Amino acid sequence: MGKLVTRPIVTLTTDFGLRDPSVGSMKGIIVSMAPDVTLVDLTHDIPRHAVAAASYVLTRTAHYFPPGSIHLAVVDPGVGSSRRPLVGSAGGHRYVGPDNGLFAEILNRDPSSEWFEITNPRYWLKPPLHSPTFQGRDVFAPAAAWLAGGVALQTFGPRLMQLATLGPETSHSEQPGAVGSRQGSIIWVDRFGNLISGIEAGNDVRGLAVSISGREFRFVGHYAEAPTGEPAAIVNSDALVEVFINRGDAAAMLGAGVGTPIALVRAGGGAPHDG
Amino acid sequence: MGKLVTRPIVTLTTDFGLRDPSVGSMKGIIVSMAPDVTLVDLTHDIPRHAVAAASYVLTRTAHYFPPGSIHLAVVDPGVGSSRRPLVGSAGGHRYVGPDNGLFAEILNRDPSSEWFEITNPRYWLKPPLHSPTFQGRDVFAPAAAWLAGGVALQTFGPRLMQLATLGPETSHSEQPGAVGSRQGSIIWVDRFGNLISGIEAGNDVRGLAVSISGREFRFVGHYAEAPTGEPAAIVNSDALVEVFINRGDAAAMLGAGVGTPIALVRAGGGAPHDG
Amino acid sequence: MGKLVTRPIVTLTTDFGLRDPSVGSMKGIIVSMAPDVTLVDLTHDIPRHAVAAASYVLTRTAHYFPPGSIHLAVVDPGVGSSRRPLVGSAGGHRYVGPDNGLFAEILNRDPSSEWFEITNPRYWLKPPLHSPTFQGRDVFAPAAAWLAGGVALQTFGPRLMQLATLGPETSHSEQPGAVGSRQGSIIWVDRFGNLISGIEAGNDVRGLAVSISGREFRFVGHYAEAPTGEPAAIVNSDALVEVFINRGDAAAMLGAGVGTPIALVRAGGGAPHDG
Repeated sequence: MGKLVTRPIVTLTTDFGLRDPSVGSMKGIIVSMAPDVTLVDLTHDIPRHAVAAASYVLTRTAHYFPPGSIHLAVVDPGVGSSRRPLVGSAGGHRYVGPDNGLFAEILNRDPSSEWFEITNPRYWLKPPLHSPTFQGRDVFAPAAAWLAGGVALQTFGPRLMQLATLGPETSHSEQPGAVGSRQGSIIWVDRFGNLISGIEAGNDVRGLAVSISGREFRFVGHYAEAPTGEPAAIVNSDALVEVFINRGDAAAMLGAGVGTPIALVRAGGGAPHDG
Repeated sequence: MGKLVTRPIVTLTTDFGLRDPSVGSMKGIIVSMAPDVTLVDLTHDIPRHAVAAASYVLTRTAHYFPPGSIHLAVVDPGVGSSRRPLVGSAGGHRYVGPDNGLFAEILNRDPSSEWFEITNPRYWLKPPLHSPTFQGRDVFAPAAAWLAGGVALQTFGPRLMQLATLGPETSHSEQPGAVGSRQGSIIWVDRFGNLISGIEAGNDVRGLAVSISGREFRFVGHYAEAPTGEPAAIVNSDALVEVFINRGDAAAMLGAGVGTPIALVRAGGGAPHDG
Repeated sequence: MGKLVTRPIVTLTTDFGLRDPSVGSMKGIIVSMAPDVTLVDLTHDIPRHAVAAASYVLTRTAHYFPPGSIHLAVVDPGVGSSRRPLVGSAGGHRYVGPDNGLFAEILNRDPSSEWFEITNPRYWLKPPLHSPTFQGRDVFAPAAAWLAGGVALQTFGPRLMQLATLGPETSHSEQPGAVGSRQGSIIWVDRFGNLISGIEAGNDVRGLAVSISGREFRFVGHYAEAPTGEPAAIVNSDALVEVFINRGDAAAMLGAGVGTPIALVRAGGGAPHDG
């Protein structure tokens, strides 16, 4: 609507939950240092240490925010170790968090993105509280506030030419090789038990079906089009192939989850035709 | 305090939870399109597809916000089907969401309210992302932002003279016929296990008691007035008759829940006197 | 960064959860009465009636916010009874909530703090809704809004020279006598199962170890320094001694919880040397 974004936005994505003082401390530091900021909780319910899950949520959410928004993400099993704290810029957005794979997919999607290690202690929280166990509070929250205040990325430290990637053990992985192909696996199970695959598809899936665990499911146009309780497939709102059960839980009923193989096949059996 | 509300408020009520990217996407779209908006989470913890639960929360919360606030509610098992997306105005507030019964009670409480179907694609999210599986992102979030930006209700599409009602299967139903009477049922179980009925009562409940499952409970003035562990009744903060256990869980201990019949009776047995 | 905080901040800490209309009602009242306020959720996930848990979170979070912030905390098993509603000022921050021990530790940390009972009905929510069962909505939310609007503390009612303390049954207690000593107990179990004790320690813990249930754990500098699955100790981000398991759940694995005794000992057995 053409209005200027005057208040910088800082979104928060963590696995801290909301029972502990962690998230509140980070929010307090940010609004103390940058009072004009608008804080937006993306989620604090990332499963513990699930870096790939945080990457999934962040990659599919951040770009909806206004250009220049700052996305602070802290899922950080290696806090205090040699893994690097970083700030970066990709696709017109700014990111803050640990270099542990969390930002690998963001980088994949914008190879011209720029990333910098946070080494300059001037931008850390002031002692005496600085601690190697809570960089969310002591390094990342202050960095987000400094970014909101106009500090340039390169001021924080040296440029990083490579980022850590998600290890093979992070089975939530995006498996970018599989995207666009006809073979893939489940990369996410949402709150409703819907099985979301890494297979991208256009809206024309005529003649195709989805195969999981030897069973085949036809495509429908929207959830309510499938009979209640019967599994079916859909091209979902991120253009990914998804298997669901109308008003049911596909993950539970099909015994499938992250990593379960899935394929696009020609409806009625066999592989899809080539053309 | 006489100050002008300068930033429009958009409240959010969904069953999306916070593990998935859904809520973050909606927030991003709203603040991108209407940067001056103040977002307020009412809840994202509505039980899956529980339209009546969303109606209960919305009906008891929205009116506390400033007049003109926009209440976006998406609990939408029929997303993508023929159920209509709508915007409306009732009691000085504005509403956005699916026409599936979610707003039936809001309409009941303000028969002069006005509702419009969202048919004009100009107000949808721009392609290529538009999808029939996530109208929260593609239709409702943009509509809330357009409303915040000053677009008039009738601009979205044709006026609806009737809204969908909550079906009988939605046992959370308000049962408006029972309100004010002496017979009713439990319509809500809160986080503490308190049993909230649809029976409205004034503060004068002298000589009355509450009957559930053949047991009778006396009224007290506040929770701590009842002995610990013993069920009692109260006229709660919404003027509804409620059965609770001081520091206990009435739903679990009495084996009662939504739909359980409840009655106001004369204390000591029998029906209440007529006058 | 030297900017003036122009919008007053109100933080919220409750045990109401987000399934019920309670939190939304409070937010609505605050933004209706004080539209310029910035609301920040600290947590609504305090375990039911766990006053000491709310005190723990509040004490460790509030001071990160800008001076003058208003912290509204409602964990209130005695709502409507004779326990007093209060407003107060401590350490440059303002507090609103019930006098049930929630603010005892805040007072401990700032003996010059000032507290006032809310007795003036002019500052309560207007009838007809006023109810003894939900003072969060009817007394505390309005009081926070009035404070944000500039009303002075002493306007609400008489000064209180003493506050209620946390009873012995609240085993989450801070046990201030133990802080600084070599003997203490677990005062908090965080979301990751980390066991946080009330024993304060500097960064120099050379030659020391931690003893729980007859087992002894060595100190490391950060979580990832401990081998996966093996318990170890750390001086945490609040300078408290903490026992954790790298990528594991110490509370579950050690069978320890709030109240479990813990001691600083000389590494290799025996008590620490005196100097």
